[in-house]
Amino acid sequence: MATIAIIGAGAMGSGIGRQLAEGGASVLTYLEGRSPGTHERARAAGMEPASLEDIIGAEIVLSIVPPAEAIGVAERLSAAIGERPSPVTFVDCNAISPKTMNAVAAAFRPGQANVLDGSIIGLPPQPGKAGPKLYISGDRADKSAVLAAHGLHVRRIEGAVGAASALKMCYAGINKGMTGLGTAMLLAAIGSGADQSLKREMAESVPDLDRKLSSAIPDMYAKAYRWVAEMEEIAAFLGEDDPASQIFRGMAGLFQKMAEDRAGGGELADQLDALLGR
Amino acid sequence: MATIAIIGAGAMGSGIGRQLAEGGASVLTYLEGRSPGTHERARAAGMEPASLEDIIGAEIVLSIVPPAEAIGVAERLSAAIGERPSPVTFVDCNAISPKTMNAVAAAFRPGQANVLDGSIIGLPPQPGKAGPKLYISGDRADKSAVLAAHGLHVRRIEGAVGAASALKMCYAGINKGMTGLGTAMLLAAIGSGADQSLKREMAESVPDLDRKLSSAIPDMYAKAYRWVAEMEEIAAFLGEDDPASQIFRGMAGLFQKMAEDRAGGGELADQLDALLGR
Repeated sequence: MATIAIIGAGAMGSGIGRQLAEGGASVLTYLEGRSPGTHERARAAGMEPASLEDIIGAEIVLSIVPPAEAIGVAERLSAAIGERPSPVTFVDCNAISPKTMNAVAAAFRPGQANVLDGSIIGLPPQPGKAGPKLYISGDRADKSAVLAAHGLHVRRIEGAVGAASALKMCYAGINKGMTGLGTAMLLAAIGSGADQSLKREMAESVPDLDRKLSSAIPDMYAKAYRWVAEMEEIAAFLGEDDPASQIFRGMAGLFQKMAEDRAGGGELADQLDALLGR
Repeated sequence: MATIAIIGAGAMGSGIGRQLAEGGASVLTYLEGRSPGTHERARAAGMEPASLEDIIGAEIVLSIVPPAEAIGVAERLSAAIGERPSPVTFVDCNAISPKTMNAVAAAFRPGQANVLDGSIIGLPPQPGKAGPKLYISGDRADKSAVLAAHGLHVRRIEGAVGAASALKMCYAGINKGMTGLGTAMLLAAIGSGADQSLKREMAESVPDLDRKLSSAIPDMYAKAYRWVAEMEEIAAFLGEDDPASQIFRGMAGLFQKMAEDRAGGGELADQLDALLGR
């Protein structure tokens, strides 16, 4: 029985863990310092709490954490690996820029790990639905075969460490960026009395987009705090010289505003919900 | 026979002119200093070149020009109106912020004009297709009845001068912003070798959006130079205190880059077209 370890048991980490456990793997996770809710979610997904010592003994280790924690996870693993003779296979699956991905890889000392670049596209696995895709790049991408063998939808892409991260940045930039645009302009319309006209015009002239935003915007509120760092990663990925980097610094500010709104009672969210008929 | 004047005989101005002429109006336009191509386009649309003196004698005067010219048009009309006893009915139909719209209104001296706020949503009228909508706000919006009577699709919205402009800002922010997001991220994907994976992923997981961008991005190249000012108007509309204003300053920079690319031979446009299968 293959042993697979996952650092991070949030909605995505535990969903992937459940898929792998249902696919026949023994799935370890590291829960030190995590909340009772996270412990319960991990248990329900069939994941087994383990020490870092046990984690690094797994056939492959996935990191599925908020972007800001990605480098820290690699550093702790590197410390745990120490002088261990055989390299650990490590896949960073986080929404980070290629540059941050390179910093993750550089957190390991030579010989400590086969570092693969992963990125997850799609929502966390739900019972009865197709799960997300895990894109993987890197010279040793062949080392990820155990994941597909235990039920994950893995797609390898050409290119070194950084290519999978770039794909995630581009996809998230379009998809989450669209949610940001819709949020920004519906709020502006509410503030200027153009909200009902705008909603009607969108339903008439861009019905697909209207439908998409009507679900994507309310789905965003609870995730806005995570999207801040993700938008900053996209800005960093594009680089100062690309005028589009400014778009994503603005998106980070917008999602920060929505995260603060949620923390403060959700007044803006209520206004958006009323306009969207939620 | 009603006489209607249009300042600006670009694709939109001449298209609206043609609709009104076909609706039975006599349509005047002001062409001084304009290119032979514009003269020809106006003539083909059934519009008659006229002096500013004649223009201000029309039942209603529409301004349909690039955003940066909107205030200048109002100033020239004000100078032409001078001490004329009865007010001219003037509709600014441009993609400008409510604040710029107020500056347009302020360019007239008291009693010179009934100023209405207009905004056009949709593509220029095409033979055999439904034309765009002209939204109109302002206390004297009733003065626009002659437009609907001659075939324009007019929709009055509640609110003072500024409300129609706000609607246009919000709608354009979503719609053109989406084209900007797609352009920025496809270019980034091309630059980082993630382009084919991204295109395939979009076709699979967001097919509506993939189809929309595949036509909206190539349609943008020729308009990018105009969209720069429009994005800056949206940023000004949102205001410095709204983090989303930064999104649109970034969009202005991106469309500037695409306008420069077009002027310089269209290398980026060619790369995008190749990826989009155009």
